[in-house]
Amino acid sequence: MHFNDEIKKLIDDKTKPIGSLGLIETISEKICLIQRTKKPVLLDPKIIIFAGDHGIANSGVSKYPQEVTYEMVNNFLNGGAAINVFSKTSSIKLQIVDAGVNYNFKNAKNLIDKKIDFGTSNFIDAKAMTKTQFMNCFKSGKDIINEVSKTKTNIIGFGEMGIGNTSSASMIMSYLLKLPLSKCVGSGTGLSTMQLKNKVEILNKAKKFHGTIDDVYEILETFAGFEIVQMCSAILQSYEKNMIILVDGFIGSSAFLAALKINPKIINNSFFTHRSSEFGHKILLEYMNVTPILDLKMRLGEGTGCALAYPIIQNAVNFINDMATFENAKVSTESND
Amino acid sequence: MHFNDEIKKLIDDKTKPIGSLGLIETISEKICLIQRTKKPVLLDPKIIIFAGDHGIANSGVSKYPQEVTYEMVNNFLNGGAAINVFSKTSSIKLQIVDAGVNYNFKNAKNLIDKKIDFGTSNFIDAKAMTKTQFMNCFKSGKDIINEVSKTKTNIIGFGEMGIGNTSSASMIMSYLLKLPLSKCVGSGTGLSTMQLKNKVEILNKAKKFHGTIDDVYEILETFAGFEIVQMCSAILQSYEKNMIILVDGFIGSSAFLAALKINPKIINNSFFTHRSSEFGHKILLEYMNVTPILDLKMRLGEGTGCALAYPIIQNAVNFINDMATFENAKVSTESND
Repeated sequence: MHFNDEIKKLIDDKTKPIGSLGLIETISEKICLIQRTKKPVLLDPKIIIFAGDHGIANSGVSKYPQEVTYEMVNNFLNGGAAINVFSKTSSIKLQIVDAGVNYNFKNAKNLIDKKIDFGTSNFIDAKAMTKTQFMNCFKSGKDIINEVSKTKTNIIGFGEMGIGNTSSASMIMSYLLKLPLSKCVGSGTGLSTMQLKNKVEILNKAKKFHGTIDDVYEILETFAGFEIVQMCSAILQSYEKNMIILVDGFIGSSAFLAALKINPKIINNSFFTHRSSEFGHKILLEYMNVTPILDLKMRLGEGTGCALAYPIIQNAVNFINDMATFENAKVSTESND
Repeated sequence: MHFNDEIKKLIDDKTKPIGSLGLIETISEKICLIQRTKKPVLLDPKIIIFAGDHGIANSGVSKYPQEVTYEMVNNFLNGGAAINVFSKTSSIKLQIVDAGVNYNFKNAKNLIDKKIDFGTSNFIDAKAMTKTQFMNCFKSGKDIINEVSKTKTNIIGFGEMGIGNTSSASMIMSYLLKLPLSKCVGSGTGLSTMQLKNKVEILNKAKKFHGTIDDVYEILETFAGFEIVQMCSAILQSYEKNMIILVDGFIGSSAFLAALKINPKIINNSFFTHRSSEFGHKILLEYMNVTPILDLKMRLGEGTGCALAYPIIQNAVNFINDMATFENAKVSTESND
């Protein structure tokens, strides 16, 4: 019997009507296929948060001042943010990366220093980063995962922090999917209708300035943040290490989309942890033809969706390992009539 | 400041954009209001599974033979079912009640004996239970919760097992909401289109036989299972003890709907843990105007939705207790422009 069929049979032999555990079954099946085993395990789960600042924040695309990026990094380091609370609830280790925050953290303890610069350039009339900065981002993302892979970790989630980064994500989505910005821009941290209109106008100006770009690397160089490129690279390398990849919300998904263009196989190792209420995310998920695990009307980022969906994945793994089969539980199967 | 406003302020002061944690915030707020505190706690969580057999099962409404009810009870007792696995994952205690299974368990260890009879009568041409049986069910449900309330438990979920009980649930829904059966009947454990058509026909015959019934107690007497009435009573009593109530899928929601007709206030203490893929459940949830926490395309019952949603509720409680505020984390709030 083909391995895929063996897994299917094992799932169908469990004491429940066929298919009645819905996503739990499909998650479980996918993890068995990733790990090529009927006895999957989740080891040393981690969430890595990449933080970076954005030149575009100076154009008034966010409700919050840029300082919030470094203040929130300090909040992560002090354990006070939502992602700290949710990670702790599920015993997930959290690592924070300074990918390019506009602040000198002075070798803060527990902060991984991969600072490329003190924020990107404003992509309104320039490339967000130089080619060298871009290459360094790619190297950093890879290095971080190589370091993680020295531990037992086989499941990893990605979060981000960066005032202005829904704008970057919208541009990446718009260019990669060739969709108008109106389908890719949302209210981020909570813009009013007027502020949202303003955000779309600003981003449309940037689109006009830069014109057509088809190459995924150049799209990232032009519009991404350092944290988004490092995340993209980290996703690609996590796949190389055969980890289970947890994708968070809109910004995480934009980094994933870029990674997907570079290596379509990463989809086989990845779970979309939630559907964000940020406008473009629903469309982005539909484009990738994926079903998110949760839909809690959240729009926070930080990897919060990854942390909240993790127990569902744990349950899916325990399901295949621990649930009885019709045969060993002596339960009758379907009638034949 | 009014207590409700104090809770709202506390939530809005957390280091995140207002409303950005979606359901996590609303769950958290609701629990604070239930417990009248800014420091809510979840204590000794339990799931109680009520099992019972149904006369209607003899009319061919299910894919599985009636024996599966007692076989699954044994599976619960031996720890092999989905609900065992999921409860264990989240350290939820499981209690199994024999409300009226067609089997002699001979004082099985860990089984709570509240057996009313060896299954209900077939409601195709009779009342499912006598008034005395009905009253005994109500007493049993109440007694079980009185017993539970001697422990610290302040959050409780309800599951069920009973071949044929989606038929009972459909009849209860159809009568209580005055909806045609076509909106209330689904494929249960996985009927084919033909089998489903057959099920609707059988249930329509029963509806014709019994005619109009308006009284909720009489509707239950006529169509419910012992497990459904005991669950209904247990829900009402859990509310009296001010517990947080977790509602599972279609059958659990039909018991909840009946309880809601008896005491509308129970909605204040209750969470709908998931949207089942059983056809009528979506309509039933919409009628009650409630948002389920999860939507995992499940249709198993047993309380599996309660167990899977529990970590989300834990996270919501930890959110309000442990997350920093803008002030104590020294994070800037929104710009005023």
